[in-house]
Amino acid sequence: MVGATGAVGRITLELLRDRGHQTVRAFASSRSAGRHLGDLVVEEATPEALGAGDLDVCLFSVGGAASRELVPHAARGGALCIDKSSAFRLQEGVPLVVPEVNGERAADHSGIVANPNCCSIPLSMVLAPLRDAAGLHAVRAATYQSAAGAGSLAMERLLEEPVDGHDLRMDWDFDGIELDEESKIRAETRKILELPDLPVSATCVRVPVLVGHAEAVWVETVDPLTPHEAEQIFAGATGLRLEQFPTPLGATGLDEVLVGRIRRDSVAENGLVLFLACDNLRKGAALNAIQIVELLLPTRAAI
Amino acid sequence: MVGATGAVGRITLELLRDRGHQTVRAFASSRSAGRHLGDLVVEEATPEALGAGDLDVCLFSVGGAASRELVPHAARGGALCIDKSSAFRLQEGVPLVVPEVNGERAADHSGIVANPNCCSIPLSMVLAPLRDAAGLHAVRAATYQSAAGAGSLAMERLLEEPVDGHDLRMDWDFDGIELDEESKIRAETRKILELPDLPVSATCVRVPVLVGHAEAVWVETVDPLTPHEAEQIFAGATGLRLEQFPTPLGATGLDEVLVGRIRRDSVAENGLVLFLACDNLRKGAALNAIQIVELLLPTRAAI
Repeated sequence: MVGATGAVGRITLELLRDRGHQTVRAFASSRSAGRHLGDLVVEEATPEALGAGDLDVCLFSVGGAASRELVPHAARGGALCIDKSSAFRLQEGVPLVVPEVNGERAADHSGIVANPNCCSIPLSMVLAPLRDAAGLHAVRAATYQSAAGAGSLAMERLLEEPVDGHDLRMDWDFDGIELDEESKIRAETRKILELPDLPVSATCVRVPVLVGHAEAVWVETVDPLTPHEAEQIFAGATGLRLEQFPTPLGATGLDEVLVGRIRRDSVAENGLVLFLACDNLRKGAALNAIQIVELLLPTRAAI
Repeated sequence: MVGATGAVGRITLELLRDRGHQTVRAFASSRSAGRHLGDLVVEEATPEALGAGDLDVCLFSVGGAASRELVPHAARGGALCIDKSSAFRLQEGVPLVVPEVNGERAADHSGIVANPNCCSIPLSMVLAPLRDAAGLHAVRAATYQSAAGAGSLAMERLLEEPVDGHDLRMDWDFDGIELDEESKIRAETRKILELPDLPVSATCVRVPVLVGHAEAVWVETVDPLTPHEAEQIFAGATGLRLEQFPTPLGATGLDEVLVGRIRRDSVAENGLVLFLACDNLRKGAALNAIQIVELLLPTRAAI
């Protein structure tokens, strides 16, 4: 695990242990090298250490710049690299994988598989079964993203912030038109669903919640679907759990994406409105990456 | 002011004083009668006291049930009643007024003018100039509503809640399909804008922010409008203030509705996406009510 001391890194180590993956090493920046994480001693993530050839799988959760620097070394050293940054997600030849949606694409890798953005994962999990049943015409989403999505420092800041200082934040890069988080959701959802022209419009907002992302979603399908039919479709889909009112706290610690508040969108002919929530550190990040590994190297899941 | 000890009541008293309204009395339930609010002593809001005939204007902020009981007595006693509950909003013959949008309707009252919901007010303020410039085809909104919208007890609860207990909440009545808050936004926006068939789809969410509501809005207009044209239109509209990233904390204490993040909606032909924020206790409630009074009884605005 590279980036082992971060919010996603720590959950990853926890999940690896729980799922029976026994030979694990922890890497992080020089600042954290030497620290203890349970019975692991953190090693420094250098190109040499990661490229030495003795790693089967490298899970990266270190941000775009560090991933761009380190991932190629680990891949050249022979490790299967699962990268959680945005560095390789849209690169041709790099599969962008949500196992329940396009798991079969993972095998097309050349050493690197990208893990989608923490909002793209639950969104595509809800959209894929609708695409299969009725086709997709258009998607709009307003997000309610937690501090955990911005890393463990953002979580600490929120924990220390007086409640009357709580605000909505838009702490992403802005290209003059939209936030990069909004562009990512569009581009990644298209790639995961293999619908390169799907119209997707997202508005991203950070809310003062510690863990768990939620999204208010409007979907237009090609063929009509009643809310009840959509509910039946979700009930039969892997990784989704129906809930009347999904919330981030309700999703925290769960592996499933919660989906509910499904109703007709009075605005569009074949429109549905729904609400989803998901533990952004688990299914939105760590769990999805581990599931990709288990898909590609099933025999490594010990026990 | 009836309901003087509540979150909206207290801001109303503050605004009345600031705006030069000098002869003010404070009413509340028997529980609060006798309490001091500055130099006012709270009187009990009974049908007899409010209907005695010595009140020119009654501002009500007491919830639907209490309004239904008390407002008719005050109106019969000759007071102009501005009611902030949902009790009379959709009643025929009761104007539902946002002064900047349909101020001319206020004069049609028969003793009662209704103050819209705290989300309907800023939404209709942003939609009205777009309606005038290009016609409205459809509206979708996802809300980010603060604790203050649920009253001062909800604010106290949030102030005492540990940050890791913060969650999104959907603390409104549910009719089996949507929340009553969502139905209100549809019905009120149609009445205020005088577009009885306008398709409006809202998803309402309470966020752990103390004061200030925000909304992510998708608008489809009849005629095309560029984001730049929309910006120009908002810049010329009374009560709106352009801001790159409107937030609830940024709107707190302001009289204006903040609007920004205006961009093309890639999903619809004539679609715009925008984000608004507003102090729900001021323009979303107290200030709007006082502005209605000043519209109808301009000479009472002393100084």
